[in-house]
Amino acid sequence: MAKANLLYAQSGGVTAVINATAAAVIETARRHRGAIGRVFGARYGILGVLREELHDTSALKAADLRALAQTPGGVFGSCRFKLKDLETDRAKYQRLIEVLRAHDIRYFLYNGGNDSADTALKVSRLGEAMGYPITCIGVPKTVDNDLVGTDCCPGFGSVAKYTAVSVLEAGLDVAAMADTSTKVFVIEVMGRHAGWIAAAAGLAGEGRDAPPHLILFPEVDFDEQRFLDAVAATVQRVGYCVVAVSEGVHDASGHFLSDTGLRDAFGHAQLGGAGQVIAEMVRGKLGLKVHWALPDYLQRSARHLASQTDYEHARAVGAAAVEYAVAGLNGVMPGIRRLSDAPYRWQLEPVPLEKVANHEKKLPKGYIRADGFGISAKARAYLKPLIQGEAYPAYREGLPGYRRFTLPLARKRLPAWTQP
Amino acid sequence: MAKANLLYAQSGGVTAVINATAAAVIETARRHRGAIGRVFGARYGILGVLREELHDTSALKAADLRALAQTPGGVFGSCRFKLKDLETDRAKYQRLIEVLRAHDIRYFLYNGGNDSADTALKVSRLGEAMGYPITCIGVPKTVDNDLVGTDCCPGFGSVAKYTAVSVLEAGLDVAAMADTSTKVFVIEVMGRHAGWIAAAAGLAGEGRDAPPHLILFPEVDFDEQRFLDAVAATVQRVGYCVVAVSEGVHDASGHFLSDTGLRDAFGHAQLGGAGQVIAEMVRGKLGLKVHWALPDYLQRSARHLASQTDYEHARAVGAAAVEYAVAGLNGVMPGIRRLSDAPYRWQLEPVPLEKVANHEKKLPKGYIRADGFGISAKARAYLKPLIQGEAYPAYREGLPGYRRFTLPLARKRLPAWTQP
Repeated sequence: MAKANLLYAQSGGVTAVINATAAAVIETARRHRGAIGRVFGARYGILGVLREELHDTSALKAADLRALAQTPGGVFGSCRFKLKDLETDRAKYQRLIEVLRAHDIRYFLYNGGNDSADTALKVSRLGEAMGYPITCIGVPKTVDNDLVGTDCCPGFGSVAKYTAVSVLEAGLDVAAMADTSTKVFVIEVMGRHAGWIAAAAGLAGEGRDAPPHLILFPEVDFDEQRFLDAVAATVQRVGYCVVAVSEGVHDASGHFLSDTGLRDAFGHAQLGGAGQVIAEMVRGKLGLKVHWALPDYLQRSARHLASQTDYEHARAVGAAAVEYAVAGLNGVMPGIRRLSDAPYRWQLEPVPLEKVANHEKKLPKGYIRADGFGISAKARAYLKPLIQGEAYPAYREGLPGYRRFTLPLARKRLPAWTQP
Repeated sequence: MAKANLLYAQSGGVTAVINATAAAVIETARRHRGAIGRVFGARYGILGVLREELHDTSALKAADLRALAQTPGGVFGSCRFKLKDLETDRAKYQRLIEVLRAHDIRYFLYNGGNDSADTALKVSRLGEAMGYPITCIGVPKTVDNDLVGTDCCPGFGSVAKYTAVSVLEAGLDVAAMADTSTKVFVIEVMGRHAGWIAAAAGLAGEGRDAPPHLILFPEVDFDEQRFLDAVAATVQRVGYCVVAVSEGVHDASGHFLSDTGLRDAFGHAQLGGAGQVIAEMVRGKLGLKVHWALPDYLQRSARHLASQTDYEHARAVGAAAVEYAVAGLNGVMPGIRRLSDAPYRWQLEPVPLEKVANHEKKLPKGYIRADGFGISAKARAYLKPLIQGEAYPAYREGLPGYRRFTLPLARKRLPAWTQP
């Protein structure tokens, strides 16, 4: 294939290490001067392609790329936007091809989760379906860790580490104060469908007396009485109780905890979140003093506590995606294959996007403790390697030296596009 | 004074570095073998003294003390319990003296905030008032940073650093997603009466376009319309808006935001917290997508991101308190005196507890930006030195090597005490 430009785009929720992937993509592409010309980063993901808003990364120096790899968030911006199938969204795909052609782009790297793998798969078929020669590679990323075809997802190891450390620290705080203050502490973590982050909270302690004493997974139907009994028993035995709850916890009828109960002064339903509902439940039904925490975006942007393993995964999938593209692979994603738990060894291999798109990997039954309130030894063996090492960013005057990049947009060559 | 034992107790909310103070107390006391015998740590603060539950620290080795200095929470436990004046609580003071006498304790170090300074002051007068020879030293500690007599409070610098870093990181996340997702991000921080932690959020960025765009202080009466206008203008100008709100924000009539509106399914009022109220307000009134975070105990236990300056303060006040006690000072507290902002230089000096007890240092007017929504250059100059340096704990297998100590309790010599 003749020399062509490469387009990289980020999709869905950003992570602490997605920019490490971006930096690796740019660095690796520059080592393929014979095959790759410019590297563009789409502004706000696939929408930036449709809008013809393409950041030109040529101005980034080696030191900039090192800083980029240490900066959380998404340098080019990301989006929540899904392309439908070729028939339904034909006009959008045609626009996509026009933009790619106008900027001589024939390598497209799409960095995201399930939905993005689906989009990448469709784009990879544009050559066959619509005659535009494109090599499209999916690049895995999601804090939810729910992609199939890869042992884990870049972004997850860091949120796992943040969650485990936070639960460990807050647990020590609660233990110190429990005699006269808070008896039950609740922390709500992300994971609408899969309990991977909730499971990571379990790394904070081992044995039934160490926090977190109870974990509530979306994979286990919530039973109020069983839960309250477990809280009461823990407070009785240990003096306090730390609960980690996934935002996606629901009862046997599929009713989300987060949808229950809270109303504002005007009677409008409020999405209190599973953590708050659990906290109010414990306070109301057991009469115990409760505190609760909701890290929200803090958990997925906590680059200050990024896992070194996760950082290495994030860089490696970026570099591999470029290598795959240059090698002419199309419609694949670099998947992480685990070779052993301890010592932790892994390698990358190309996984067809058909195997990835629109699938969702939940926490296996065997990863959940028999009582449903904790993680098994198997889960621990799986999770442990993913939080190893501290990929600290460099600090300047007490704060991480994160950089905000203002990259020029490539000159537009096409008429403006307005979202239909 | 003949050789006697020393008692150290923690009081009120624990911090990321209060155990660094504890370690320094024990280490320094051991260097005064001529004056100090054993060092006891009261279990759950002053209550442990009344209950005659005194941990004997003799078994702690040098390596244990190094680990202790890196562990958040309170090693001996803390309490929320205030002794009233000598007349009202005479029986408790008598019990206190009995316990001190039974264990030959004539040095008492009380590590806490405003209330604890008041208790320490009362105990320091027991010699005069009730004939028991005691040397009592207050040791400053509070994440709220609201003690007078000291330029800052050990514990605050670390929560300030955590808050600034968290706002910086979440701000990058929101910026990346704002085009199609969250437009307004709200983070609620501690500080019921004083806006020091809220002010620290301001360190995350400089200039009106950098997060946090708006800070809500307890020192500034909340005006809903002015706030909503400012949010709308920020979203219009920047594309998104990050708001840091102190838990203690209230309107001109003193009505706390956290007390408004939310009710559960049974109509019971819920303390939603100021952050949630602000988030719902923005969503309801401006129709913008909002996310909100509530770090709660995570912020004050985040030893993984402790400020080196704060850590050094925490150790220094512990060491000085012992030196003051041995030197025969009574009823004082080591106060931090700032000598210069840049380079940051400071020293300790004994401050009479009368000047500290029952006072509260709010954010000075001059620290708040003219529009009431940010911090001034003066505040920045004050805050900056306090978050300098990263006092990282040592990690083991991906997690901080925090230790849970199970220290023996000294054999009881008195009849049991039951709280009246």
